[in-house]
Amino acid sequence: MTSAGQTERDSRQRAAVLQEALPYIRKHQGTRVVIKYGGAAMTTPHLRQSFARDVALLRLVGLRPIVVHGGGKEVSAWSERLGLDVRFESGLRVTDASTMEIAKMVLVGKVNKQIVAGLELAGAPAVGLAGEDGGLISARKHEGDVDLGFVGEIERVNPAVLESLADFVPVVASVGLDSDGQSLNINADTVAGAVAAAVSAPRVIFMTDVAGLLADARDPESLIIECTRADVQKLRASGKIGDGMIPKLDAVEFALAAGVSSATIIDGRGPHNLLLEFFTERGSGTMIRS
Amino acid sequence: MTSAGQTERDSRQRAAVLQEALPYIRKHQGTRVVIKYGGAAMTTPHLRQSFARDVALLRLVGLRPIVVHGGGKEVSAWSERLGLDVRFESGLRVTDASTMEIAKMVLVGKVNKQIVAGLELAGAPAVGLAGEDGGLISARKHEGDVDLGFVGEIERVNPAVLESLADFVPVVASVGLDSDGQSLNINADTVAGAVAAAVSAPRVIFMTDVAGLLADARDPESLIIECTRADVQKLRASGKIGDGMIPKLDAVEFALAAGVSSATIIDGRGPHNLLLEFFTERGSGTMIRS
Amino acid sequence: MTSAGQTERDSRQRAAVLQEALPYIRKHQGTRVVIKYGGAAMTTPHLRQSFARDVALLRLVGLRPIVVHGGGKEVSAWSERLGLDVRFESGLRVTDASTMEIAKMVLVGKVNKQIVAGLELAGAPAVGLAGEDGGLISARKHEGDVDLGFVGEIERVNPAVLESLADFVPVVASVGLDSDGQSLNINADTVAGAVAAAVSAPRVIFMTDVAGLLADARDPESLIIECTRADVQKLRASGKIGDGMIPKLDAVEFALAAGVSSATIIDGRGPHNLLLEFFTERGSGTMIRS
Amino acid sequence: MTSAGQTERDSRQRAAVLQEALPYIRKHQGTRVVIKYGGAAMTTPHLRQSFARDVALLRLVGLRPIVVHGGGKEVSAWSERLGLDVRFESGLRVTDASTMEIAKMVLVGKVNKQIVAGLELAGAPAVGLAGEDGGLISARKHEGDVDLGFVGEIERVNPAVLESLADFVPVVASVGLDSDGQSLNINADTVAGAVAAAVSAPRVIFMTDVAGLLADARDPESLIIECTRADVQKLRASGKIGDGMIPKLDAVEFALAAGVSSATIIDGRGPHNLLLEFFTERGSGTMIRS
Amino acid sequence: MTSAGQTERDSRQRAAVLQEALPYIRKHQGTRVVIKYGGAAMTTPHLRQSFARDVALLRLVGLRPIVVHGGGKEVSAWSERLGLDVRFESGLRVTDASTMEIAKMVLVGKVNKQIVAGLELAGAPAVGLAGEDGGLISARKHEGDVDLGFVGEIERVNPAVLESLADFVPVVASVGLDSDGQSLNINADTVAGAVAAAVSAPRVIFMTDVAGLLADARDPESLIIECTRADVQKLRASGKIGDGMIPKLDAVEFALAAGVSSATIIDGRGPHNLLLEFFTERGSGTMIRS
Amino acid sequence: MTSAGQTERDSRQRAAVLQEALPYIRKHQGTRVVIKYGGAAMTTPHLRQSFARDVALLRLVGLRPIVVHGGGKEVSAWSERLGLDVRFESGLRVTDASTMEIAKMVLVGKVNKQIVAGLELAGAPAVGLAGEDGGLISARKHEGDVDLGFVGEIERVNPAVLESLADFVPVVASVGLDSDGQSLNINADTVAGAVAAAVSAPRVIFMTDVAGLLADARDPESLIIECTRADVQKLRASGKIGDGMIPKLDAVEFALAAGVSSATIIDGRGPHNLLLEFFTERGSGTMIRS
Repeated sequence: MTSAGQTERDSRQRAAVLQEALPYIRKHQGTRVVIKYGGAAMTTPHLRQSFARDVALLRLVGLRPIVVHGGGKEVSAWSERLGLDVRFESGLRVTDASTMEIAKMVLVGKVNKQIVAGLELAGAPAVGLAGEDGGLISARKHEGDVDLGFVGEIERVNPAVLESLADFVPVVASVGLDSDGQSLNINADTVAGAVAAAVSAPRVIFMTDVAGLLADARDPESLIIECTRADVQKLRASGKIGDGMIPKLDAVEFALAAGVSSATIIDGRGPHNLLLEFFTERGSGTMIRS
Repeated sequence: MTSAGQTERDSRQRAAVLQEALPYIRKHQGTRVVIKYGGAAMTTPHLRQSFARDVALLRLVGLRPIVVHGGGKEVSAWSERLGLDVRFESGLRVTDASTMEIAKMVLVGKVNKQIVAGLELAGAPAVGLAGEDGGLISARKHEGDVDLGFVGEIERVNPAVLESLADFVPVVASVGLDSDGQSLNINADTVAGAVAAAVSAPRVIFMTDVAGLLADARDPESLIIECTRADVQKLRASGKIGDGMIPKLDAVEFALAAGVSSATIIDGRGPHNLLLEFFTERGSGTMIRS
Repeated sequence: MTSAGQTERDSRQRAAVLQEALPYIRKHQGTRVVIKYGGAAMTTPHLRQSFARDVALLRLVGLRPIVVHGGGKEVSAWSERLGLDVRFESGLRVTDASTMEIAKMVLVGKVNKQIVAGLELAGAPAVGLAGEDGGLISARKHEGDVDLGFVGEIERVNPAVLESLADFVPVVASVGLDSDGQSLNINADTVAGAVAAAVSAPRVIFMTDVAGLLADARDPESLIIECTRADVQKLRASGKIGDGMIPKLDAVEFALAAGVSSATIIDGRGPHNLLLEFFTERGSGTMIRS
Repeated sequence: MTSAGQTERDSRQRAAVLQEALPYIRKHQGTRVVIKYGGAAMTTPHLRQSFARDVALLRLVGLRPIVVHGGGKEVSAWSERLGLDVRFESGLRVTDASTMEIAKMVLVGKVNKQIVAGLELAGAPAVGLAGEDGGLISARKHEGDVDLGFVGEIERVNPAVLESLADFVPVVASVGLDSDGQSLNINADTVAGAVAAAVSAPRVIFMTDVAGLLADARDPESLIIECTRADVQKLRASGKIGDGMIPKLDAVEFALAAGVSSATIIDGRGPHNLLLEFFTERGSGTMIRS
Repeated sequence: MTSAGQTERDSRQRAAVLQEALPYIRKHQGTRVVIKYGGAAMTTPHLRQSFARDVALLRLVGLRPIVVHGGGKEVSAWSERLGLDVRFESGLRVTDASTMEIAKMVLVGKVNKQIVAGLELAGAPAVGLAGEDGGLISARKHEGDVDLGFVGEIERVNPAVLESLADFVPVVASVGLDSDGQSLNINADTVAGAVAAAVSAPRVIFMTDVAGLLADARDPESLIIECTRADVQKLRASGKIGDGMIPKLDAVEFALAAGVSSATIIDGRGPHNLLLEFFTERGSGTMIRS
Repeated sequence: MTSAGQTERDSRQRAAVLQEALPYIRKHQGTRVVIKYGGAAMTTPHLRQSFARDVALLRLVGLRPIVVHGGGKEVSAWSERLGLDVRFESGLRVTDASTMEIAKMVLVGKVNKQIVAGLELAGAPAVGLAGEDGGLISARKHEGDVDLGFVGEIERVNPAVLESLADFVPVVASVGLDSDGQSLNINADTVAGAVAAAVSAPRVIFMTDVAGLLADARDPESLIIECTRADVQKLRASGKIGDGMIPKLDAVEFALAAGVSSATIIDGRGPHNLLLEFFTERGSGTMIRS
């Protein structure tokens, strides 16, 4: 049983927390932020709901979030279900025509709409988009030593449709369109960076399944709270960065090079880390400044 | 070889045709029109391109089209490919959870984006939408004698997202969302009528694979050019209407009852019948006025 | 010393509180609210700061507050300092010309600017106004059995200047102007109600030095959480209402009669009760609905 | 008698022509174009109607035309009717006070309104303007070896009134006003070029009674389809340009020098050449690019 | 020689006059007023200039004038010069095709532009309009016992072009256009009343060559300062109204019936009577209130 | 008794004066002007009313005035009444905490509202502001050889609140706010110059109790009508400038250095000198051009 005294104390505490949020809310008013959504935060039901509510809250207190997502695991699962070959080369999915077809169906028709529905239920009006919509993502086939099939590189992000949807949270699936009308599979981290640059967002957040950037991948205590782009380049040279972190850092560097002020790698496995990034001094994970 | 004389003659003719379009262009300036897209026009490649260019042209000369589509055949094909049971009751697909999942992937992730990409290539900036996006289509489970599973009835169309996308052609997949976040399969003809009513469009066009409404389904010469809602009710009572036409007429009546001024059933098998509907006196197919 | 574990726990709690605020923030988006400010909340330094930050927070999360204040104690103190006679009749200050002069100087030149400066420091751009500004409060001399001097009754609130100041928190001193250019002293509770009616605010909050409305003034346990205008009339008839509460209830009835949906009497002695009123289910004090 | 088959074939052809216009309509969307109207196109009734409908069509499909006209023949006819002396010096009308008075009456009160009425009937809302209106054309007396009387040179085109009339087709008579309030007769080709420059129109069209620019005035086969400003200067140096073409080329050079991207000389004797200029690859007449 | 003392005195007087204008300027802010211009004020050079400056001043201090004019005397003079028959029936000009042609040239090409140029020189940006422009005045042939030729009655005034020209003083020539594109001669008083009604102007002013409305046409001392529409009807019944006044009163009644609040008949022979009407208590001439 | 003839003559004269104002009204349309109000014009009742009406008139004919005021005499009087020490150092008031408190009460609560009420009565909607309002005047404590107490120097003028109040005449009291929320007393001449610079006003007017700038303070005939900033610097070097004029000239130089085009020192003792400055060729007092 809860005594009146305790309720009273709770209320005071609640008010105190809201008050402590004041300087952060002021600081972030009107800020465009691109959130790369993925990992556990996207696959675990209760984290999914927590994410949706965090984004809804960010929007209500004045930030202007854009969500970008991939959905590799779901694509692999469906590919296998359909008897397609699932293969990767240097971390990029080898994408033949059938895989591309199913990838788009999964990303755009399933994952994207699931995120949109979650945001709507949490009170944030949202609209899902793929590269086709309003010419959002123009891409060309990736050219490399190995033929990866329908894997694309971004040529141009056209922010017109994002601007038309100012009253909504845009949710962007990482699929591009080439000039012949062929869909291409694009790395979602890269899409997040490119979208941030195209809308002149000062911030991009990457939600991952790690605590952040470790100075030494083998030492969990070596988490870096904040560093510069130059620091990251030194760290990469050191060879101590984990393999899985490399594509994230590529996307971070791409975004910073394109004019985004800061990129943050946060741990999506903790509920509300996204919120803590915006409403605490310490933030969450690793922030890399331009 | 084409002589100069012939070219000259062609040019005159071209100018004459454009001039004859003048009164129609004036008449349709600013008109919102909802086009239910489907049938051969959606499945045959050259008709698909022809449709995209027709819509692009309608938009450029001042109409404001919204495209609504289903995609039953593709859904059936994929369902079979995945070993799902394909079954219909009174013309409505029995939709279990797996079928709903694949239906959404096909409609939203494949068919919708294919239409959007086609319109973009034809020069009409387009954005694909499903019922989730911006809370566009709120639905509830269809209640009938037979349990059809995840088949829905429209509760409300929220036109806010359509209005935000004034610079684009919205392309709407016939999927709704219920209040628990469950997707529901909805008849696309019905969606077209409901969208037309929600945006106060004076016109709705149904693209079909028949010549139009026949007074007697067995007599291809009995095509009706124009009639009223009352006439349609009499015809239905006569029992001579073809079975396939019944759901169309239901949607026509729904739209007219909701305030749409006229509904036209056109033959999507002929290239550019859509254009002829707007740029000739005779129009195309059967127009039913309120 | 704070261990990392404790900080971690605090952060989670903080995020949880912010999340719980989400439905309230959504509910109050864009709501105009008039806050009658006074009592201990205005005279105690730490409550003053707490008030300013609460108002700043309300504004940042989407409410649109207007502050109305009097300042009787300061006026009395200055009157005495200047050797003026301080006298009241039925709760209204007897206001001769000298008293009116000093009252305006105190209310407008001191109290009002103190509130404005506090809000500015708390991050809420604010502008102070008196009845003269933009013809905000037109008044006429109060006519009663006893001549109270320059005490006024509101004739008209002109909301034009409030609308021009949409980007600011207006802070209104309870001084009116009659048609001869004479300033008149007006009860601040009444001004709050009249301003709420003039800007069609759905809510008005009265900050007082009591817990709220007591069903029986002698029984502190008889606090009423919520009631209707009709209930209030019955209570008044019962004769158990405290004397100090009568003018508040007059203002409440005036506001509700003029179209305001609800009036809340809250205890300004508790820091952040204003915030709790908007961010908890229970609210704070007594809400009287129309 | 027209068989159904033939009608069917006609309709298909009509649709095909409209479809072929699509890329041109897209290309010209929003383009400001100044059309110098004159010659047979202005004096022959059926060409007059054809011109009006062409302009109406251009406007409906998204161009923003401005019509500029003179009216020399009508002025001469009325001058003679009134027994005035009709005399030209180097192609410029010697304009005494009486001639100026009648010229203005004819150009502004008769020719201009005839064009306006024609456009209105064809469905293009139009407004007639002379140099006086909104200070549109400020001019000063032409200074040359011979005193031409009230013949003017443009000092400034004030586009304010053209901008206010964004919903209308402005129709400008080639009359200017000097700083003393005296009307001056100005060459209409020059006015067209100056107006194009003033509104930053990328294109100006001169409707004439010749096929276009001939490399050799004596050789009708020497029609130039497209050339540059530099080419024109060389041609003029060659001495083979026809005399009547010189003032046109002066106006072309004036317009190009003032920032207009291209000037086209088209044959106004052919109905719809104006339309063909915008809706065929080949265009019509001679285009001179900057 | 002017002494400093005198200048000083003049300046004070000037300031006093400007100050006295203050309440009138406030009263008329934003008022749409239609001024029927004609008579001596239009034919005498110094009155013409005085009129232009009065209108410019009215506009600068916040009124929004529209000028409507005829030009009968000039039309008659030109008709005679061209050997045309000048004939009137019940005060209406018998207008054959040649007369209509010259009337339009005179009214639109000469008189209208003269007024526009005068206003421009006086500092009021002005644009001349005839019934053709923007479909301003739709008319049909007057039907009466006698065939008057191209004399018209107003069917509709389309205020769209007047609204587009909000930054200018519109100057309207009393010429209408029928549905076949034929120009028609219309009584300018009637046009003034119809325009005032179409733009919801509260006031219409008729500038005449008489002192105002006389209760008895034979008694110059019987000038009426102000009366109602009912009074006018009684006066007409009395038979003492002058013949020339009848068409004015018809136009007055038409305007009042169409919703205009007051119509004033002023004496255009006195310079600045227009100004005095707006800047003195007494006004000028006769005001008839609805 | 006034004969009709005389009234007639008066009316003509009135119209003539209004007409003569026309070119001045045109010239000043939309001009932002900052008026430093003070001296006799602020303390003498009939000059006060005359000032209010002049400002109302300037606003109605299209200027956009901002009034800036101090109120030294009233502050001194109240300080003495409260037994505070009134002391000046180099023309600046030594301002201890008590003096600052009373100064703000007098300037903001009494003088400012008196000016606002006067303007409102004269028909000019006005809003009073102090440095606190909308962060209008940020200041820091004056640092000099002598400690003057709470005397401030301007750090920044934030024009946002002035822009929001475009429909009103802003009336600014010369009080600033430092970053700790402490009010500071600032020289009103300096505030006028800084406000003019912040809103890019081309003109600033200083109302004084002298005829203007005298080349030789001892020679009343040496009034300078117009001069440049360079001239002023030479005059100051000459040592013949009166002491009281030095702070004015400092403010003049400050304003001109900050981009204001001209500063005028006028004699506020003459009623309507403000009006004459704007409506006569000669103007009033001394104009110093940049």
